[in-house]
Amino acid sequence: MLSTTDPRTGTTTATDIAATPDGEVGAIADRAATAFTTLRQWSRDRRAGLLDALAAALEEHRDALVATAERETGLGEGRLDGELTRSAFQLRLFGEVIREGAYLEATIDHAGDTPMGPGPDVRRMLVPIGPVAVFGSSNFPFAFSVPGGDTASALAAGCPVVLKAHGSHPLTSRLAHEVLAEAATAAGAPDGTLGIVYGTRAGATLVAHPAIQAVGFTGSLSTGEILLEIIGRREQPIPFYGELSSVNPLIVTPGAAAARAEQLAEGLFASVTGSAGQFCTKPGVAFVPRGAQALVDGLAARARSAGGQPLLNARILASYGEIRERLISQGRATVLAEGSTDDRGFSVAPSVLEIDAADVTPAVTEEAFGPLVVVVRYDDVAGIARALDQVPHSLTASIHAEADETELVGALVEEVRDRAGRIVFDGYPTGVRVAWAQHHGGPWPATNTQHTSVGPTAIRRFLRPLAWQNAPESVLPFELRDADPGIPRRIDGVLSVPSVA
Amino acid sequence: MLSTTDPRTGTTTATDIAATPDGEVGAIADRAATAFTTLRQWSRDRRAGLLDALAAALEEHRDALVATAERETGLGEGRLDGELTRSAFQLRLFGEVIREGAYLEATIDHAGDTPMGPGPDVRRMLVPIGPVAVFGSSNFPFAFSVPGGDTASALAAGCPVVLKAHGSHPLTSRLAHEVLAEAATAAGAPDGTLGIVYGTRAGATLVAHPAIQAVGFTGSLSTGEILLEIIGRREQPIPFYGELSSVNPLIVTPGAAAARAEQLAEGLFASVTGSAGQFCTKPGVAFVPRGAQALVDGLAARARSAGGQPLLNARILASYGEIRERLISQGRATVLAEGSTDDRGFSVAPSVLEIDAADVTPAVTEEAFGPLVVVVRYDDVAGIARALDQVPHSLTASIHAEADETELVGALVEEVRDRAGRIVFDGYPTGVRVAWAQHHGGPWPATNTQHTSVGPTAIRRFLRPLAWQNAPESVLPFELRDADPGIPRRIDGVLSVPSVA
Repeated sequence: MLSTTDPRTGTTTATDIAATPDGEVGAIADRAATAFTTLRQWSRDRRAGLLDALAAALEEHRDALVATAERETGLGEGRLDGELTRSAFQLRLFGEVIREGAYLEATIDHAGDTPMGPGPDVRRMLVPIGPVAVFGSSNFPFAFSVPGGDTASALAAGCPVVLKAHGSHPLTSRLAHEVLAEAATAAGAPDGTLGIVYGTRAGATLVAHPAIQAVGFTGSLSTGEILLEIIGRREQPIPFYGELSSVNPLIVTPGAAAARAEQLAEGLFASVTGSAGQFCTKPGVAFVPRGAQALVDGLAARARSAGGQPLLNARILASYGEIRERLISQGRATVLAEGSTDDRGFSVAPSVLEIDAADVTPAVTEEAFGPLVVVVRYDDVAGIARALDQVPHSLTASIHAEADETELVGALVEEVRDRAGRIVFDGYPTGVRVAWAQHHGGPWPATNTQHTSVGPTAIRRFLRPLAWQNAPESVLPFELRDADPGIPRRIDGVLSVPSVA
Repeated sequence: MLSTTDPRTGTTTATDIAATPDGEVGAIADRAATAFTTLRQWSRDRRAGLLDALAAALEEHRDALVATAERETGLGEGRLDGELTRSAFQLRLFGEVIREGAYLEATIDHAGDTPMGPGPDVRRMLVPIGPVAVFGSSNFPFAFSVPGGDTASALAAGCPVVLKAHGSHPLTSRLAHEVLAEAATAAGAPDGTLGIVYGTRAGATLVAHPAIQAVGFTGSLSTGEILLEIIGRREQPIPFYGELSSVNPLIVTPGAAAARAEQLAEGLFASVTGSAGQFCTKPGVAFVPRGAQALVDGLAARARSAGGQPLLNARILASYGEIRERLISQGRATVLAEGSTDDRGFSVAPSVLEIDAADVTPAVTEEAFGPLVVVVRYDDVAGIARALDQVPHSLTASIHAEADETELVGALVEEVRDRAGRIVFDGYPTGVRVAWAQHHGGPWPATNTQHTSVGPTAIRRFLRPLAWQNAPESVLPFELRDADPGIPRRIDGVLSVPSVA
């Protein structure tokens, strides 16, 4: 039986949840494949209704879900309450996405003459890829776990989902799955629309199963690489969408440091320590002008007066301690300031390390998942650029500057734009807005594809294009027939959007 | 020095082209990286002008290009002339694509309240990925080689291109590169916009080079897998877009076989033997109802009276013979009819093999690149379905039916839609229309991604999303500023298209 641990106390309790045996994993994947034959035929409207029903069910069970997650993650009630709100919002947003229909990229080229001779009628749109395996993350028990964005986007696309529950929060995962599965059944979804498996081995078996057609994953680079290897051994490789690792460099210009040292110290410290620094977008390296002592002092003072924060699980606790040690022993960072720890559970003290830009090596830019930031003192843009070469590509890069530093900001954007998927100005990368324009992805090793895992365009991951040539109307999807289906379409090269009625 | 061989005679001649040494490959890749810093700043209009200039240059040198390619490929002048027309068309089409601008997916979400609190201003669009390596194919010396679709789509995206010339047509590759590079220089393109390397080792060195950010490849599954391994050893893995292998099953219903046996025999034979059967979309397996003797006889008669056709090179010749042997010895196909060969150069005789649907195994569905088709005699849809399970996923699947066979066609579509990227009705998969709705890709092993290599959406391969949060106008691309840039955009969730002036 799996166990669950309260990170605030370290108390481990047995659960009545068993690791899923291989045979059962196969049966669940097969049921997902069967469900796919029905779900792919549902109208977009019906799928959107399902997503709305799932959102409502989450909200209905909000108190139980938040309380369970709090015991298993140690993340505060306020944070978890907001995360549940976000998860419901995501489900409804994907409902809007599929109702609107632009995501299908419906395209019609009628038969006609071309410079190469007569061309046949060709029609194309995106269709669901098939059953998707979704790996829940440790740090978002809702928004990147069972009821999270991968689940929402896969279901929106028309793909059944088999969840791999994260070992840190089995009870939350089970409860969330029960809530969603019950609502799905009530909405008429076929058996197998939402499955769940438990245990590391079950996750590996799931990824290897021929019924699974794509994998959504938020977790560590090392686990991601293990899953990629499993996929490499499949007879048919499948897409793996991994959000893997991110250091998220943040740069403070001399102007910003001079104008608002206290405000920056406050904002940066909050971003580094929010949810105990366990966000993929936590700024792990902060470039600060050499003379910006007020900012550094403000950061150090906040760290010194900060109490301990519980990490999510024993593995993250151990890893955090090891990496912090390596940043100092091999990366040659020095300890600028540390908070206290309350010596209970998986509590750690917030840490501010520092190093000179000239001394930055890859050994000091390893991602430390927890409340730690390395302050890098720099002299000029060249020094930042050289140090950035030692920082792995990230989900985000942030720049804090004053309005009159236009030239400097331009130069800094040049330095960071090929190293990140989102550039944040005068703000912090944590707190990822769920919106159409969001991109939560970045060059390797931030992610291993050009896709996002947050925002409407995440649905692309679970779709593939299909073209019909000279097809009789009877076999064409509704959205590709001649009659106007009321969605954006491109017809004979011209993109058009339905006029608002 | 590389040599060149006329497939029609087998005569090999030395060229003055040397295999590119590693150091030179590195210098070329570095020049591409330098060119990228300029090219990415060009307006879409200027890049479209460059593509138009390249198209015009190809047409200006049409006679020399076609004559050179004919000597190196043995493909007929008419076919090559059409292919050059297509290549110029593709370049101009990608010019239209970027002038229109929808491909950027420009999206703006203004700052505003959300259920999770205040949301920052976020803007997203697709940006070029960086220098691209393009591997020329053997079978399309223009349209999938130096001046081909990968080159056009990468340049359109804003990416410099380093071509790896196919060893079968070095002189054509060099001439095409000279023509394009001269036109690019005249259009003001930076040095390094279009590079070229020669030789197998140079191709491997190129794919491993850190400046290269994506690879476009059309060729064999085995070479594709070698290149994927090289990418796996890179410090930073990069996307590899491979069009790898395709058998393209074609199904004739009882109604179609009865109604138009001769027409089908004529069309199928033409599709199987066009360009000596060396199309990725050649139908390699044709399902024919057991009683459809007139169709089979018509096909056999055409094969018997057909003369020899030269394959592209000695390797393809040897491989074709070996695979044909395996289809018979291991796949247990029988020879239904064969043409003659003229015993010169790389000439082979067209072959029609046959097998019962019940006897189909993977050993009889290996792709034979050349003028060969395996006729599969079937009794019912269940027999087709069972046999299709033995056919690798393909770029295309084709169905020939009569108008009153609606139910049967529906059942056949169900069987093929997850096995192919394009479903062709009452037509042939060869002759891929270059149009917005085209999809030239398919489930593994047809391709290794969800992308197409033909048609406007091929540009996606060489783009990545980038988001700007709370960015000052000065650092935003023109297309993401508040002022209307005249392209389709999604603003606060609403997609709009510029009204036609």
